[in-house]
Amino acid sequence: MLKPLFNPRSVAVIGASNRKLTIGYRIVQNLIDSEFQGPVFPVHPKDRFIKNLPAYPTIKDVPYDVDVAHIVVKSSLVPSVVEACGEKGVKAVIINSAGFKEVGGEGIELEKAVVEIAKKAGVRVFGPNCQGVMNSDPAVRAYCNFTFTPLRQGRVSLFAQSGGVGEVVNNRLFELGAGIRMYASNGNAADVDVCDILEYWGGDEGTRVIIVHIESLADPKRFLEVASKVARNKPVLGMKSGRTAMGARAVSSHTGGMIKRDTTTELIFKKAGIVSMSNEEEICQAAVALAAQPAAKGKRVGIVTNTGGPGIIVTDEVIEAGCSLPDLEESRQKALKEKLYPEATVSNPIDVLATAGPEHYRAAVEALIEDPNIDIAVIDFITPFFVDTEGVAREIVDLAGKASKPVLPVVMTNKLGWQKTLSIFKEAGVPVFDLPETGGRVAAVFAKHAELAARPSEQAPSLANIDKAQAEKIISNGTPKGGGYLSQPDAFELLAAYGIDSMPYGSAESSDQAAKIAAYVEFPVVLKVDSEDVVHKSDSGGIALNLADEDAVKKAADEMLGKFQDANLFLQKQAEPATELIVGAVRDDPAGHVIMFGLGGVFVELMQDVAFELAPMTRGEAANMLDSVKAKAILDGTRGRAPVDKSAITEILLRVSALVSDFPEIAELDLNPVFAYTKGSGAKVVDARIRVQN
Amino acid sequence: MLKPLFNPRSVAVIGASNRKLTIGYRIVQNLIDSEFQGPVFPVHPKDRFIKNLPAYPTIKDVPYDVDVAHIVVKSSLVPSVVEACGEKGVKAVIINSAGFKEVGGEGIELEKAVVEIAKKAGVRVFGPNCQGVMNSDPAVRAYCNFTFTPLRQGRVSLFAQSGGVGEVVNNRLFELGAGIRMYASNGNAADVDVCDILEYWGGDEGTRVIIVHIESLADPKRFLEVASKVARNKPVLGMKSGRTAMGARAVSSHTGGMIKRDTTTELIFKKAGIVSMSNEEEICQAAVALAAQPAAKGKRVGIVTNTGGPGIIVTDEVIEAGCSLPDLEESRQKALKEKLYPEATVSNPIDVLATAGPEHYRAAVEALIEDPNIDIAVIDFITPFFVDTEGVAREIVDLAGKASKPVLPVVMTNKLGWQKTLSIFKEAGVPVFDLPETGGRVAAVFAKHAELAARPSEQAPSLANIDKAQAEKIISNGTPKGGGYLSQPDAFELLAAYGIDSMPYGSAESSDQAAKIAAYVEFPVVLKVDSEDVVHKSDSGGIALNLADEDAVKKAADEMLGKFQDANLFLQKQAEPATELIVGAVRDDPAGHVIMFGLGGVFVELMQDVAFELAPMTRGEAANMLDSVKAKAILDGTRGRAPVDKSAITEILLRVSALVSDFPEIAELDLNPVFAYTKGSGAKVVDARIRVQN
Repeated sequence: MLKPLFNPRSVAVIGASNRKLTIGYRIVQNLIDSEFQGPVFPVHPKDRFIKNLPAYPTIKDVPYDVDVAHIVVKSSLVPSVVEACGEKGVKAVIINSAGFKEVGGEGIELEKAVVEIAKKAGVRVFGPNCQGVMNSDPAVRAYCNFTFTPLRQGRVSLFAQSGGVGEVVNNRLFELGAGIRMYASNGNAADVDVCDILEYWGGDEGTRVIIVHIESLADPKRFLEVASKVARNKPVLGMKSGRTAMGARAVSSHTGGMIKRDTTTELIFKKAGIVSMSNEEEICQAAVALAAQPAAKGKRVGIVTNTGGPGIIVTDEVIEAGCSLPDLEESRQKALKEKLYPEATVSNPIDVLATAGPEHYRAAVEALIEDPNIDIAVIDFITPFFVDTEGVAREIVDLAGKASKPVLPVVMTNKLGWQKTLSIFKEAGVPVFDLPETGGRVAAVFAKHAELAARPSEQAPSLANIDKAQAEKIISNGTPKGGGYLSQPDAFELLAAYGIDSMPYGSAESSDQAAKIAAYVEFPVVLKVDSEDVVHKSDSGGIALNLADEDAVKKAADEMLGKFQDANLFLQKQAEPATELIVGAVRDDPAGHVIMFGLGGVFVELMQDVAFELAPMTRGEAANMLDSVKAKAILDGTRGRAPVDKSAITEILLRVSALVSDFPEIAELDLNPVFAYTKGSGAKVVDARIRVQN
Repeated sequence: MLKPLFNPRSVAVIGASNRKLTIGYRIVQNLIDSEFQGPVFPVHPKDRFIKNLPAYPTIKDVPYDVDVAHIVVKSSLVPSVVEACGEKGVKAVIINSAGFKEVGGEGIELEKAVVEIAKKAGVRVFGPNCQGVMNSDPAVRAYCNFTFTPLRQGRVSLFAQSGGVGEVVNNRLFELGAGIRMYASNGNAADVDVCDILEYWGGDEGTRVIIVHIESLADPKRFLEVASKVARNKPVLGMKSGRTAMGARAVSSHTGGMIKRDTTTELIFKKAGIVSMSNEEEICQAAVALAAQPAAKGKRVGIVTNTGGPGIIVTDEVIEAGCSLPDLEESRQKALKEKLYPEATVSNPIDVLATAGPEHYRAAVEALIEDPNIDIAVIDFITPFFVDTEGVAREIVDLAGKASKPVLPVVMTNKLGWQKTLSIFKEAGVPVFDLPETGGRVAAVFAKHAELAARPSEQAPSLANIDKAQAEKIISNGTPKGGGYLSQPDAFELLAAYGIDSMPYGSAESSDQAAKIAAYVEFPVVLKVDSEDVVHKSDSGGIALNLADEDAVKKAADEMLGKFQDANLFLQKQAEPATELIVGAVRDDPAGHVIMFGLGGVFVELMQDVAFELAPMTRGEAANMLDSVKAKAILDGTRGRAPVDKSAITEILLRVSALVSDFPEIAELDLNPVFAYTKGSGAKVVDARIRVQN
């Protein structure tokens, strides 16, 4: 329970200082400047006063209850200080001091020791090596942090893994006049982590919107679970730094090779319903608007403007973001036409003309709000000097205040000359944007949030015909010592245990045996060398296609055994040609498995036209993968080709997802190709590689 | 010559008014407020004073010379007023009044009449239906406009086709403290156009950077010519509104169908060396930085930061924009290591740590400036309260002032608390950014400008083996009345006249004749119906492939003649299979022809993986098209395939470019497929459709 941390009734600063350029001074100063609503207890071994406050030699000398204690002493002293805090009954410590996990070696041990002591003593640890927390609630006003942005009450709570990013975003929210509700930047996160904080803010009524900045997730599974719950109730905006960092994946499979950026965090955001963003300015603007305006129900944007250019800019932005720009109902257009100047445009964007006054704006904005074709209204308003701009402002805020859809005004003006006009929006709590592109981009965030919120709340389905016990047996018997690739028969048997179809197969050790097996699986057959060393079979002569009879099989088998000594042979009935797909899974610890889907050949190799999802997938997510590749027209049938069996493909994706979720020891699974037949005729795995590694 | 327009010694306002909410009042007010350095002459039929100035009943009554006269009277009176201006010796009129071309009908005639009168009288016309011009030169300070942004002296000149966009950008430049050099928004552009203005600013020493906002180009060819010259001497940033507008192209060819966005303006920008941008905020930030800092020589970015997160944000931005982030030379890294804290990072981004002071920043920034691996330095600086931030600022501006590469500081701070630190940058004229992403994006603009500036100044090559006279004959004889598709023999003959290879061919009217021709062009042959009505031959049974002998040809010809009565038959030796390409050209009046290149089949149809250039192309541009498609690996040879003959493809592209440039009546040209053979073996056009339309 984080209540005492974010709502302390009293704060001690252990390591407080009278030297102005120290953290120990700054925290005391910030608590005072921000009008913290409880007592502040500086702790200093010698000084009797810190600033104007009486100081105490140790935490135990403080003659009152202490909820939160900052610890700003050198790291080696921290364990004993935490112990003392425990004895004093402190609820939570914020360890600002550095010198722990981040320095490696002994620091790691020191951090562990501190957490252990704290746990025993019943003290929660925030940090170490961190900034701290803030709460702008007028009943609290806790600035337990050493940063520079003044505390301004707002409705956006902000978690930042990077203190620098947190401070920049916090400062920008301050500049926008919006402020924050709560703030947390927890450094090494030895105890209180992002999940605890999200969970707490999820239940905090004053928090309308949450911003989460992530560099890396220590416990992605719990994050997903917690964030999913929270995002169902309030918008969560996520920002991941390090998007372009080339992952250190050296796996040679296509699946692994394809994940070049940090796709996984993006997938977690999507699955949790977090709107993924990459720009601090846009995050701030969107958060403020989301906190002040109703959520959107869809992505249909309506625009009102009094000059062409800015209206076009909003149009470009929202269309590029995948929104639509439908016209109003015809009757409404007609009615609106009556109320505007004759030269005005009533199609979307509605151009009320530069001379439009309050009544024109009222008519146009009202039309957008009432029209069932529109989910989000963006109002461009450049302030001509010959217009009653205050009147226009009053009409917009009046309508925005009553609307059940977001109304997003872009007010383009000289801020000094039109201060009064702007203050009408401010006093009404209707956030405005300076630039049309900002209005367009924020509209796109509302649309994205609507899309995420509209997803059915589905679970990964339970699938019939799964023999988990059999799969377990195959994996435990078939995995090479220390991990590695399953043999081909094991791989296909494992797939079969999870209800994933392939062609009849068998294995052989000699060419005679191969010929016999070939007859059994039925001609024509494919002959492959089955060896962990031969990864790209077709490049190295380890595969022979279309063998029509026993002689052909024998000849090919002899050649192959000559080339790859001691290798096993694997035979499989050759599949009828079909649309080639690739289905893959790669484990990205600790998040779990990323599932990949794409069309084979050039699509995957050259165009990198692939879709990713995080396992375990819901049926909706699996089906959505098929629609997410650019080449999807091929699946639907194009230029005389028949559509493929999409439900069979979806089924394979779901079963792969179930398999890797049930067996986290599968490090990599590569079904390449999968042959997809026409609708109703299923899909079959033609080649499979499965690597097991704990 | 636009000098009198932008540097008026005196300004008259015809239609000046004492009513405050009128344009005629506002212009007078703006001239006075901005401290125009010459006399202002209000002209009003009755009032003897406008504001504090004496007014004159007509322009002719003004007892002094007048360089510029605003005209703010109703449109029907404008012709006579312009005439009077001519008689008075006014150099240029700014017609703010509306009611001309933009209202259609009589307005169009009225505008023509005005221009004619002005021409006769030797008066330049700016507008009509426009804002006006501004010049912040202290010797001029002309605010000939009715907008609201105060005039602040700067080094960026701003042209905006949309007055609304112009005002928003101007206002933002003002807010950034940067101001403008000159401003122009010319409405209907009946006389003085964007080209005149660009040309004038090209020669204006006070203009360091030009921003051009375009909605549509009336004379793209002249724009290209003028802008190319100007952009060679100073950075030009271009913004095109209406990027997503679906073009009204209903042509059924792939080529036409592919141009969905306004690609043409983007191509003109690129060819002219204009940096294309889409965001007003970024345009302003980049313009200010480009005006203050040396140009970059390349795209290698070096970053200094004192906190991890913001450094990562800059990294993400510049990498995503195609920049690189090389490390410093090893010896320099070592030397730098000595000067920074032991825990600091000296690889790129250089993390000097939050506690870094002036000497650390100096060392790191100096290293970036001196290192030959780095073209652009981005300096992240979040202002910790325990650091001498003013000292850091002084070091940065000192180094930036002497550097021969751009130094872009991002100063993240509480603007009130660190006012003095910020003022150090301001006084030194070193622009700073608030957010790390802005720093990254502006660095990317410097990099893009460097790339454009580094292009060789090449002309379209003159090509051997071109028989222009023969081509002229084919087109004039072969074009159907009123325009339409050339016959197949004509199309291939036209290509041959421009040295573009195809397979031997012939045409026939009967199946017997077809059989004879087939023997002549050599078996196997392709038989096609040659009819304008049959556009997609393969979809409609209008094509028969791989006919091996006379009988096969006869049979196919009979079938085809049964299906397409009165159609001609076209026979061609079947080409050996090869890598399929598509080469196209489509006329986009009045800019000229857009050339398209892509790989055939799924690449063009599904993935829309195509490159565009504007004709006439240089050899560099043609070669670059091959590198611009995602599927380029196929051209270079991938997975055991041999590389194709890229120089032959480049040659075809250049010859197509020459053909359509020589014959603007070619509305559309579609070579699909072109077969590209292995290196040294050339490329051949297999199917061609050429539509001629004046």
